Amino acid sequence: SSSAADYVTDGSSGRSYANYTVFKGKAALSMSPLLPKFRKLESGASKVEKNGVVLLTFWPAIGQRKYDWQKKQIFALSPTELGSLISLGPAEHCEFLHDPSMKSSLEGQVKKSLSITPLGNDSGYFVNLSVVNTVEKTNERFSVPVTRAEFTVMRTAFSYVLPHLMGWDQAVRPRQANTPASPLKQ
Amino acid sequence: SSSAADYVTDGSSGRSYANYTVFKGKAALSMSPLLPKFRKLESGASKVEKNGVVLLTFWPAIGQRKYDWQKKQIFALSPTELGSLISLGPAEHCEFLHDPSMKSSLEGQVKKSLSITPLGNDSGYFVNLSVVNTVEKTNERFSVPVTRAEFTVMRTAFSYVLPHLMGWDQAVRPRQANTPASPLKQ
Amino acid sequence: SSSAADYVTDGSSGRSYANYTVFKGKAALSMSPLLPKFRKLESGASKVEKNGVVLLTFWPAIGQRKYDWQKKQIFALSPTELGSLISLGPAEHCEFLHDPSMKSSLEGQVKKSLSITPLGNDSGYFVNLSVVNTVEKTNERFSVPVTRAEFTVMRTAFSYVLPHLMGWDQAVRPRQANTPASPLKQ
Amino acid sequence: SSSAADYVTDGSSGRSYANYTVFKGKAALSMSPLLPKFRKLESGASKVEKNGVVLLTFWPAIGQRKYDWQKKQIFALSPTELGSLISLGPAEHCEFLHDPSMKSSLEGQVKKSLSITPLGNDSGYFVNLSVVNTVEKTNERFSVPVTRAEFTVMRTAFSYVLPHLMGWDQAVRPRQANTPASPLKQ
Repeated sequence: SSSAADYVTDGSSGRSYANYTVFKGKAALSMSPLLPKFRKLESGASKVEKNGVVLLTFWPAIGQRKYDWQKKQIFALSPTELGSLISLGPAEHCEFLHDPSMKSSLEGQVKKSLSITPLGNDSGYFVNLSVVNTVEKTNERFSVPVTRAEFTVMRTAFSYVLPHLMGWDQAVRPRQANTPASPLKQ
Repeated sequence: SSSAADYVTDGSSGRSYANYTVFKGKAALSMSPLLPKFRKLESGASKVEKNGVVLLTFWPAIGQRKYDWQKKQIFALSPTELGSLISLGPAEHCEFLHDPSMKSSLEGQVKKSLSITPLGNDSGYFVNLSVVNTVEKTNERFSVPVTRAEFTVMRTAFSYVLPHLMGWDQAVRPRQANTPASPLKQ
Repeated sequence: SSSAADYVTDGSSGRSYANYTVFKGKAALSMSPLLPKFRKLESGASKVEKNGVVLLTFWPAIGQRKYDWQKKQIFALSPTELGSLISLGPAEHCEFLHDPSMKSSLEGQVKKSLSITPLGNDSGYFVNLSVVNTVEKTNERFSVPVTRAEFTVMRTAFSYVLPHLMGWDQAVRPRQANTPASPLKQ
Repeated sequence: SSSAADYVTDGSSGRSYANYTVFKGKAALSMSPLLPKFRKLESGASKVEKNGVVLLTFWPAIGQRKYDWQKKQIFALSPTELGSLISLGPAEHCEFLHDPSMKSSLEGQVKKSLSITPLGNDSGYFVNLSVVNTVEKTNERFSVPVTRAEFTVMRTAFSYVLPHLMGWDQAVRPRQANTPASPLKQ
């Protein structure tokens, strides 16, 4: 339900970018966390307005160790979808369906489907993305085999960022008020 | 044993609020962490006086995708109760009983019971709250089915905040004294 | 091998104390993390000189809900001992032996033994401390039953503090040099 | 594929070093995390240019409790290799091959192999390093038995640092822009 356009960020100073990328025979898959958006309240406090996501980016191989970034497709994983990945058993699969134009006049034009299916023998998963454009009659498919070691990196990194995407790291951050600028004892 | 009234917080600047909410057919369930309270010692150090909690808020559906926030009921989970949830097996259940007026003259008037029961097939849990008021003769019940993916988000977020609710993040925070304002070598 | 005396800390400002305590029929058990000690190097960098510990404190019940803090005994868990507890299976047990005077003239006078034994049915553990003083001919014993929920809190909190006790949180902290005081572009 | 030379760091102030070391009969094994490298972008933001690693250092015993640091050999574990270790089952083994001079004129001269093999009965692992120099006709071997408790410390510490080695801690760090220096309401 989250579209990637919501997460285009300006390059303001202090911002750091990091991803985890696997390059495979037919495509590359990169993932990176995007922060939640906070809204300033009247009281001076702030509140999570929109959860963060982990952005998956797929782009195709066009030769040996050459990939075409122009043909990339993205998929934004919500906290609950991350929860599904984190708890995925070795022989289990899952699938998420997104419409990047949901609740707009273009709803239903593009259908994105991300599916994760086991490679077998607890050796990892296929991460598959299908992007169907019903108007342009196109269907782009990506399939990236991810080893168990790579999936463990994903699971560990997703578990780490999940509370941050929900803003819980900020909610449990010690308040400034604990170290007041005004003296306590006079 | 913790009552929600203990955790009403002022909206001072720097405070951040975040929750995780699931909207289901008959009710919605929202959860958010609340920080421990520290007490300043004579020495200048501080000590946890009261552990933080995760606040669960239930409120009923009153139509399709409409929920009545006025009829909300809350339940505050202590660190040990969070430990119970974090380690809950797929086919296990647990129950917690709270009296919001414990040790006051109103003790026994209101009984809150939170129970978590498996949906079956490792597909998640029912989170049930019952609030019985023996004086007003009311009994409010909420039952929210939580998928395995959603429960994984809860478990991951609860594991993350648990040390913060106990103040252990502060106890292992590097001391200011490590970077003294006064010069070391002169 | 670590003695508690090594971890007596001054109450300098900025220091925070936090513990997790369970009160049971015959004794209470409290645990709290203590930071590692860093040594300043010539280069200006610093290095962990001594790992932190989790301090366990036992003190006996002397009546209903009354405990005698004066009779407390302590046991300091090293990182590797914490690793043993974190990975302890439901039906497994473990034991650690400490001599608080090791490598001193008093070596062998006092023997501390901490053992963790299962309660059965995956319902938790007994945490037992025995302190034998061969000179004073005393033998103090504490046995505290810890529920699975409580042990999960311990395991979660121990896993959280472990990297901090080893100083790894400081080793992966972004360096000041990343945001130099001197301007980058002139 | 990462060589240790890439990770030699200056001792600038603010830098902290920490390791976890096990001393065994024939050799000692020490591990410590090394931060990723960030590159400053034109926009003022920064981006991970090179992932961090966990550096393993082996050095041989030359007597009882005496070890020869001069004869040390190192092996740098990448995030994906850490993922492999973190998810290693009790009866499983894994092996990594590194060429410290890969893509240079010396490629193929030195071959490093790190293998982890179970001790049996879920009691831990052997961590073995072999460094073969095909020009100098040398073959140095180290084998360090690691108990389950020690491996749990490694797994816990590796899981903790993994997101930091990938720079994800920086990517989810609250932006300075959230607390602007310029006033919001005038």
